[in-house]
Amino acid sequence: MAEYTAPLRDTLFNLQNVLKIGDYAGKPGFEALDADMVEPILTEAGRFAAEVFAPINASGDRQGCTRHDDGSVSVPDGFADAYRQMCEAGWTTLTAPEAFGGQALPHAIGVAVEEFLSAANMSLAMYPGLTDGAIRALLARGSEEQQQTYLSKLVSGEWTGTMNLTEPHAGTDLGLLRTRAEPNGDGSYAITGTKIFISCGEHDLAGNIVHLVLARLPDAPKGSKGISMFIVPKFLPDENGEAGERNTLSCGSIEEKMGIHGSCTCVMNYDGAKGWLIGGEHKGLAAMFIMMNAARLWVGLQGLGQAEVSYQNGAAYALDRRQGRALTGPADPDQNADLLVVHPDVRRLLMDARTRTEGLRALVLWSGFLSDLAHHAESEEDRTRADDFVQLLTPVVKAIGTDIGYDVATQMQQVWGGHGYIAENGMEQFVRDARIALIYEGANGVQAMDLVGRKLPMNGGRAIQSFFALVDAEIAAAGSDEATAEIAAALEKANGEMKAAAMWLMQNAPENPDNAGSAAYMTMQILGLVAIGLMWLRMAKAAGKALAAGEGDKAFMEAKLLCARHFARSHLPDAGALRRKLEGGADVIMAMPAESFLRA
Amino acid sequence: MAEYTAPLRDTLFNLQNVLKIGDYAGKPGFEALDADMVEPILTEAGRFAAEVFAPINASGDRQGCTRHDDGSVSVPDGFADAYRQMCEAGWTTLTAPEAFGGQALPHAIGVAVEEFLSAANMSLAMYPGLTDGAIRALLARGSEEQQQTYLSKLVSGEWTGTMNLTEPHAGTDLGLLRTRAEPNGDGSYAITGTKIFISCGEHDLAGNIVHLVLARLPDAPKGSKGISMFIVPKFLPDENGEAGERNTLSCGSIEEKMGIHGSCTCVMNYDGAKGWLIGGEHKGLAAMFIMMNAARLWVGLQGLGQAEVSYQNGAAYALDRRQGRALTGPADPDQNADLLVVHPDVRRLLMDARTRTEGLRALVLWSGFLSDLAHHAESEEDRTRADDFVQLLTPVVKAIGTDIGYDVATQMQQVWGGHGYIAENGMEQFVRDARIALIYEGANGVQAMDLVGRKLPMNGGRAIQSFFALVDAEIAAAGSDEATAEIAAALEKANGEMKAAAMWLMQNAPENPDNAGSAAYMTMQILGLVAIGLMWLRMAKAAGKALAAGEGDKAFMEAKLLCARHFARSHLPDAGALRRKLEGGADVIMAMPAESFLRA
Repeated sequence: MAEYTAPLRDTLFNLQNVLKIGDYAGKPGFEALDADMVEPILTEAGRFAAEVFAPINASGDRQGCTRHDDGSVSVPDGFADAYRQMCEAGWTTLTAPEAFGGQALPHAIGVAVEEFLSAANMSLAMYPGLTDGAIRALLARGSEEQQQTYLSKLVSGEWTGTMNLTEPHAGTDLGLLRTRAEPNGDGSYAITGTKIFISCGEHDLAGNIVHLVLARLPDAPKGSKGISMFIVPKFLPDENGEAGERNTLSCGSIEEKMGIHGSCTCVMNYDGAKGWLIGGEHKGLAAMFIMMNAARLWVGLQGLGQAEVSYQNGAAYALDRRQGRALTGPADPDQNADLLVVHPDVRRLLMDARTRTEGLRALVLWSGFLSDLAHHAESEEDRTRADDFVQLLTPVVKAIGTDIGYDVATQMQQVWGGHGYIAENGMEQFVRDARIALIYEGANGVQAMDLVGRKLPMNGGRAIQSFFALVDAEIAAAGSDEATAEIAAALEKANGEMKAAAMWLMQNAPENPDNAGSAAYMTMQILGLVAIGLMWLRMAKAAGKALAAGEGDKAFMEAKLLCARHFARSHLPDAGALRRKLEGGADVIMAMPAESFLRA
Repeated sequence: MAEYTAPLRDTLFNLQNVLKIGDYAGKPGFEALDADMVEPILTEAGRFAAEVFAPINASGDRQGCTRHDDGSVSVPDGFADAYRQMCEAGWTTLTAPEAFGGQALPHAIGVAVEEFLSAANMSLAMYPGLTDGAIRALLARGSEEQQQTYLSKLVSGEWTGTMNLTEPHAGTDLGLLRTRAEPNGDGSYAITGTKIFISCGEHDLAGNIVHLVLARLPDAPKGSKGISMFIVPKFLPDENGEAGERNTLSCGSIEEKMGIHGSCTCVMNYDGAKGWLIGGEHKGLAAMFIMMNAARLWVGLQGLGQAEVSYQNGAAYALDRRQGRALTGPADPDQNADLLVVHPDVRRLLMDARTRTEGLRALVLWSGFLSDLAHHAESEEDRTRADDFVQLLTPVVKAIGTDIGYDVATQMQQVWGGHGYIAENGMEQFVRDARIALIYEGANGVQAMDLVGRKLPMNGGRAIQSFFALVDAEIAAAGSDEATAEIAAALEKANGEMKAAAMWLMQNAPENPDNAGSAAYMTMQILGLVAIGLMWLRMAKAAGKALAAGEGDKAFMEAKLLCARHFARSHLPDAGALRRKLEGGADVIMAMPAESFLRA
């Protein structure tokens, strides 16, 4: 039976030894941070995730959500109570502004806690996770009245939020959406249309559900330029700001799906429902991207969470189950077989899983930290640089993070052998749950197109050039230190492959945009390797320093050095093959006549 | 909603244009083959799979199997009728000897039909699939009386068979098994013990179930040298050879699992059940490997089946669903969006899926053909050479074939976007079903160890050297032909990487066996790339020849040439990265203290 423990030591190592977050206490964006509080906060968050969220993860998967004939939806047993405890303990308020009841802590802390919750129970963590997107959209684009009406309730978790984008015929291509918004003449609008795949669209966890809905005004331009965003609450706020009259919207059905059974996926029907414009007419896409960019980092973090919980359980099984003998002779001659962990191929799976998971964690925490700097760093130069990195890394964290989540979950299931395929052991749920994260909030292929089509060329390539310079500088700074030598050398080579890929795109995409399309995924994979390689360089440096100073847990620091070397020799070499593959260009794949793909 | 059509044209292209199976008609092992009958047989098999097996695949997944209080197990609705139709049509009899009611057709035909059935309904195809393993074991090791008693019933499908190997504490490590067999004094044995993960162990499809059970005799040596095999029927055959008295064995429970819900996975309890020894005392492992080797090729073919059905449905969706616009400008300006297939990243997924699937099909059919030659070729030299290849390729087909099945199913689910995650569309079932094939019949990591530990070194490396020579010869024979130039060049490079990997193993494994263990999976992946690359060289050659002669479907042959080029540039480059990775050796992964894998 799968279990979960928050990876507290690794998270603290990243925040304290690598990012040195304590040095920022009191600086802009970090005013609320008390360096001495980081460990107690995360310890308590980890305990909460393990003791309250994790125990109902498997039962939530088995039971799923239920839609009743009146359109109401019940979440699995125990979810409502766990969510109530979460709100009471204030875990929904960490990074929100103090004006709306938040604690104004840096996002670097927020994402650490979100990882724990999502790893412990991905389905349950989606309810507050989507609310967070709504909070960000309202903070950035809501009117003062809208902020006053909704934000405190959303921050406290009393109300939850959703994103309503997709329609049956309009997924990635939001320009096709048809939901319409007619002015009521009183400043409100009547929203009519059908939305699908609405996570947490209807449930019994909270007193109200605040839907952010994309729709078209009567005079809207065609395509994505004619989309506006509306706030459409399930219950209209009354004069006291409480949930009042029921709005004319309902959940038509919920989906049977591969996983995340505890998170309801709703068809939402809007039947002249009352809503209010957010962010101006036809500015819905810009407002949506505020939610979306935060949501993409959060989805990457879902990948991290499933990777972490899978790794833990794969490792635990490898140190418990006995099958076969070590190739070098019995390790435990007094037992009738050795532990799985003696087998090099099992260790390969574990080391791959661990180095990708810990590297991803470092990247996610750095991304959270960068988003703090992007908003709050003292100099405009620092803010711009941090924002460049956030924009560049967002599609990478989303797509590579979720690829890692699914791969690691699959490989740790493999460690369990046949027992991994059996539902009650829990490993197969991690695979099914992790799978959705490659699809939603922009399928991973869409992230790759965002990277090569928008993020690499933006501002004349400023962000990627700045990233290359950072990697080069950190490699140079590492010098010939023994702790970092192997990872630095491998990273330098991989960074060279990324430079070559960027150069190939500059030379080949303008003449034929399909070359950008065919190269996109592999370019993103290389950048993901380089970004995670950079994290391992930093972690090796910090671990080497701690060991030299005799600080911290020696075994933990030594494991970090081994993991850095493993990532150098077992993952970074893929960058070269990926670069050669993308240089193959688009001609062969585009030459295939469309109908030739169908054949029998 | 997912559908299935048998890939008849591709199968025939392989059998006729690549393997030229018609040239073998009348030769030893091919006596029953009438070249003119290949197409009609496969056409009818494809129709049967599509019309009888496929329509109950999704419903079988939803309903699953049911164990009743009396220990009986019901298969999903429609399975019994479809199985009855299969037996009546004679599809269970294709490759069995005529003496037992078989048609004595070559295995190259048999595996083609098995692919269709398994692609259409993997769960249902497991019942006859496991029976086939029992038939092979009885043919090779059964006494004449045992053969007379059981084979005709198994070949006709009136009775089905199973393999009973695993016990709760003994999976990969069969030496740990505890089930015991005590002589009854009348030539029979009393079998007592518990077996788990027994596919098709109890069901209502057939009049009897013939279990082949591994157990220990009272005087058995410890470990795997003390294992014997027993035939233990559910109903003891009476004097007329019909199912008679009920044996003392029963299904204690069935597993809830990730997929293959239509195939029951049973805990089998043997309580002094009557059984008979097969293949001599303590010779159980050798007898089991006869079943196992056939079963491993068949499991690789399950991977092929799930890849094929997933690819078909991914391609169909890409030619039906409209989202976004081509990067080079609208392809269908009169529509409000273009088909998914205009997007290079969608084509990348489709081309990857197709080239891996078709390459795997060619490899599976060649493997079936080689097993015919291994048993029946006229000269001993030819038989030895074919048998070397069968032994070398068996772990590759099993592991790489199932890796491809799972990857392709996952990637084609991705083409469907959010709709791929919804149960009723069927794409997620392919992923869940395909997943088991990487685990059972020896987990893929075990296959890799079989390859590097046994198959590469056997007979002083004769098989792999013979394989290298074959690849080199076919590259040389391709010359500078335009149709094959790109695949030949890429294959030569990949074959060089495989030679380097084999050399590295020879130099580094003897001093430290862990180096064989750490390199095993990557070595197998390289060999898989080379083997499938060789198939693409052959297919490109055959397609080029057909085009030059104006024979066959022009669009089909041109697609083959494009696919060969895609495999050359988008898959074979991985061989170099894999070789560099395996040369990293075992030191880092073995240096990690076991307890360091557990951390929080």
